[in-house]
Amino acid sequence: MKILFHVTRQLSTTDRTTIRRGSARARTERSDLHATLDAGLICHLGLLIDGSPRVLPTGYGRSGDTLYVHGSTGARSLREAAEGVEVCVAVTHLDGIVYARSLFHHSVNFRSAMIHGRARDVTDTDEKLRALRVITEQLAPGSWEHARQPNKRELAATAVIAVDLAEAAVKIRTGGPNDDDEDVEEAKSWAGVLPLRPHWGTPEPSADLPAGFEVPSHVGEREQPA
Amino acid sequence: MKILFHVTRQLSTTDRTTIRRGSARARTERSDLHATLDAGLICHLGLLIDGSPRVLPTGYGRSGDTLYVHGSTGARSLREAAEGVEVCVAVTHLDGIVYARSLFHHSVNFRSAMIHGRARDVTDTDEKLRALRVITEQLAPGSWEHARQPNKRELAATAVIAVDLAEAAVKIRTGGPNDDDEDVEEAKSWAGVLPLRPHWGTPEPSADLPAGFEVPSHVGEREQPA
Repeated sequence: MKILFHVTRQLSTTDRTTIRRGSARARTERSDLHATLDAGLICHLGLLIDGSPRVLPTGYGRSGDTLYVHGSTGARSLREAAEGVEVCVAVTHLDGIVYARSLFHHSVNFRSAMIHGRARDVTDTDEKLRALRVITEQLAPGSWEHARQPNKRELAATAVIAVDLAEAAVKIRTGGPNDDDEDVEEAKSWAGVLPLRPHWGTPEPSADLPAGFEVPSHVGEREQPA
Repeated sequence: MKILFHVTRQLSTTDRTTIRRGSARARTERSDLHATLDAGLICHLGLLIDGSPRVLPTGYGRSGDTLYVHGSTGARSLREAAEGVEVCVAVTHLDGIVYARSLFHHSVNFRSAMIHGRARDVTDTDEKLRALRVITEQLAPGSWEHARQPNKRELAATAVIAVDLAEAAVKIRTGGPNDDDEDVEEAKSWAGVLPLRPHWGTPEPSADLPAGFEVPSHVGEREQPA
């Protein structure tokens, strides 16, 4: 099985010379990085705390070639990250299960972005507001205009870190299994892909909303995830 | 906004004393840990390589209170992890977006498991086969019986690490927003939850399957993700 995603730290050109149908491949286009990030909802932030690795799921957003990650100032991980420590941010889309004739060639289709860098604490109020806006657009597009924007106290209670998209890797796997020829010829097992897609369900209004408060279109007609 | 998941390293009892409706809460039941892990498809494995944090999406499985994570022996991260280094494994389900009256109280509903421990290299052939079986059951249930099982060469090319579920934290957030009273009274913005669920699509058979090869039930009738 090759269900570990092989993520290279540097964008590799040799990888391109060995692409087989359906293989995971490194993408070297910045547009692939942006598209993979923009299609996500949460990231996994990796950093060291007291010498131990920590992985935290959290919200993020992108502005140009800057990634913003946010959290509470009460969360120790974000306070640590704000001190300029090294971080690794992963955004992963699981697009399907690849069923092969052999278990060894079972795999998954995915889009994966991996960012390495040092976190910068966002302290400038204007940048912090811009960052919170792109983080909001990522998780809840339309809410920045619709909901009450953060006041001074709330802003102070929110930590935002920035990571440059300077060192990043993107890997995308699509297509069917790469079975061994003998297994294909034996034809004993089914082979193919079972696609996986996230879907928004029906909005569930809060019980304490005034009667007749309609679901706004940015929620009720939210575009399905890519 | 409280879209950072507050994951405590130790299961906390004081957390229980401050639960509000809809708040993220630490779960102290081992059954919650098992259920959160068993419902997942991939994990994010965090570890240190050359002093830098690395986060890798990969397949996993659970057997009792042991978590198995697998990959290629060619992948440096797994070779490093096999040397007994500290790892952090995160399994995250994003269950919905929580729209609040204020951006500050925007949140997400989620189930999150976080495992801390030292990786143990699985070298015993019997344990490795058992581990690969549970990893297969997690990602592609039914394939262990249906597809060709790994031969010696393939087994040797597959690395498996084990992590005890001794130090683990589970957090689950459900329900609607925790808005400030003034915002609820003003009633200017919609509030509620937009649920998110992954769905299996229609199986896509490999082009090189013999004509008439039917989709087996473990693929075509696979249970939708929880």
